[in-house]
Amino acid sequence: MTTTLADSPFLQAARGGTPSHTPVWFMRQAGRSLPEYRAVREGVAMLDSCFRPELVVEITMQPVRRHGVDAAIFFSDIVVPLKAIGVDLDIVPGTGPVVAEPIRSADQLAQLRDIEPDDVEPIAESVRGLVDELGSTPLIGFAGAPFTLASYLIEGGPSRDHRRTKQLMYAEPELWHALAGRLAAIAGQFLRVQVENGASAVQLFDSWAGALSLADYRRFVLPHSQAALSALDGLDVPRIHFGVGTGELLGAMGEAGVDVVGVDWRVPLDEAVKRIGPGKAVQGNLDPTTLFAPTEVVEREAARVIEAGRTAPGHVFNLGHGVLPDTDPDALTRLVDFVHGYDAR
Amino acid sequence: MTTTLADSPFLQAARGGTPSHTPVWFMRQAGRSLPEYRAVREGVAMLDSCFRPELVVEITMQPVRRHGVDAAIFFSDIVVPLKAIGVDLDIVPGTGPVVAEPIRSADQLAQLRDIEPDDVEPIAESVRGLVDELGSTPLIGFAGAPFTLASYLIEGGPSRDHRRTKQLMYAEPELWHALAGRLAAIAGQFLRVQVENGASAVQLFDSWAGALSLADYRRFVLPHSQAALSALDGLDVPRIHFGVGTGELLGAMGEAGVDVVGVDWRVPLDEAVKRIGPGKAVQGNLDPTTLFAPTEVVEREAARVIEAGRTAPGHVFNLGHGVLPDTDPDALTRLVDFVHGYDAR
Repeated sequence: MTTTLADSPFLQAARGGTPSHTPVWFMRQAGRSLPEYRAVREGVAMLDSCFRPELVVEITMQPVRRHGVDAAIFFSDIVVPLKAIGVDLDIVPGTGPVVAEPIRSADQLAQLRDIEPDDVEPIAESVRGLVDELGSTPLIGFAGAPFTLASYLIEGGPSRDHRRTKQLMYAEPELWHALAGRLAAIAGQFLRVQVENGASAVQLFDSWAGALSLADYRRFVLPHSQAALSALDGLDVPRIHFGVGTGELLGAMGEAGVDVVGVDWRVPLDEAVKRIGPGKAVQGNLDPTTLFAPTEVVEREAARVIEAGRTAPGHVFNLGHGVLPDTDPDALTRLVDFVHGYDAR
Repeated sequence: MTTTLADSPFLQAARGGTPSHTPVWFMRQAGRSLPEYRAVREGVAMLDSCFRPELVVEITMQPVRRHGVDAAIFFSDIVVPLKAIGVDLDIVPGTGPVVAEPIRSADQLAQLRDIEPDDVEPIAESVRGLVDELGSTPLIGFAGAPFTLASYLIEGGPSRDHRRTKQLMYAEPELWHALAGRLAAIAGQFLRVQVENGASAVQLFDSWAGALSLADYRRFVLPHSQAALSALDGLDVPRIHFGVGTGELLGAMGEAGVDVVGVDWRVPLDEAVKRIGPGKAVQGNLDPTTLFAPTEVVEREAARVIEAGRTAPGHVFNLGHGVLPDTDPDALTRLVDFVHGYDAR
């Protein structure tokens, strides 16, 4: 059976259809769980690797080759678009992104300029190379959402409580909206360059949105996520939106101009479908720690996820968060086989 | 107006009544936000301080004196009962509890013996001293719930993903239940000694329960939290149960044999009341980061919390998580005054 890109199971499900098998990919499938990833990253700093097309192509392809997943996720990092426009930041192993000068005042916003084509030529080249290699397997473009980007910039690095970010929202709402508005433009431009060079879908990743109440999310975040995704208006690609711990926000996230809402493992997919409302596909949501359990437990839980996903008009199987670094890659391959074989049983 | 302990606003609300004003206390009110706390803790290790009655009394009293809160929370740490029975662990500043030998096999369970009176004599003495000083202000006893204790013991320290804990649940359910059962007995004994020496209520704190799906919570955790709280059967004290990020679990947590369900800031109290079901009081739930905002924002948000709390049969005002260490103590005092004056406006 030959499959074209357009009727790939992933794209069918993301558009709300029912393909011949449930498509599956894994957040962070390209990463530390794979020995071949650790080998090619040896001695290369994370951010450097994201700007070297031959590495981005290799790393993005590794899980597609190994596991036979239904989609590739563009290997990048949430802060790559900020690095691309010259923000002084680095990714510190064991810590995460660290910003040299946190942004907390209006006069610091000027550095958040629009992305110019030259800034992201390595990204564009990587995408083109990938699309050539991938053939009928879709490539998902990737960007961090404005709230998560803002939290890194305001806090200066990862934060458990996002205290300064919320403080800025509450105390200086105009500055907040100006900052988030700039980040929405940048995230949108970063997604658009991926799609224009051949990505077939995008995922806007709001890692930290789950720290917000629904009221704060609607007031301070949703308009900017909508703006970021609206950069893709006129380009015919499905848009996925995901955050961790967002059970209270699923309905609002579904209003961001998305086709697919990603769900973490805390909310069963059939319950998520009720919260998201009609017409949206779902993505998720096996607890990533399940992969450390015996195979029969993994398969029992995966079956539960698939069955719950049938209540949605389209289900893309995934974990409920990224692959944990210690995960046995063989457990991931077995899970792909199980999901692919489930409907034929 | 003289108030007796029994008709203190906190106890009235916790029992589902409507006192003359909304009672308020803060999780972690005794702690690093107060300069007088930092002064008395100078040079004293955290776990040492928990076993020195004169320090426990002083630290527990500090926020009662300063803020005029409606209840004292016993100053302790989740791992104190484990330390009391001789488990080799310490609290490392900046990290949290670190267990010398993580517990991952059946033959390690023997060290989790019952608490004997001698183990907790400093705890009992602290409680008696506090009850004398507090007069008509109730003291809330405190213990960590079995799941959270188990996670520290299995992981060996704080964990973001609780991977080994879940692995043990899924792969060795009998060992899990044996371990959690031992911890339920210990947590129950630790609560009981506080109540027998004069505490007027208890809070069972399940810091990490929000990492679990509802199905896993019901299967692996709820029976053990129930067992811990059942140690108080026959003692007429209200029982509060709280965890962070537990929006999906509120109904189940309400089934643990509790009078009050604590709610984090992600779920509005009126929505929480629907999930918890009839007959339970609620506690919460102002986002602790709000205290870094201007006073008018704090008061607007606090008013929203109070109004939403009116849908419950009893509301104890609190934050939706612990006081952040950098919080301005004056902001807490102002918030207490605002909550106390709200109903009289």
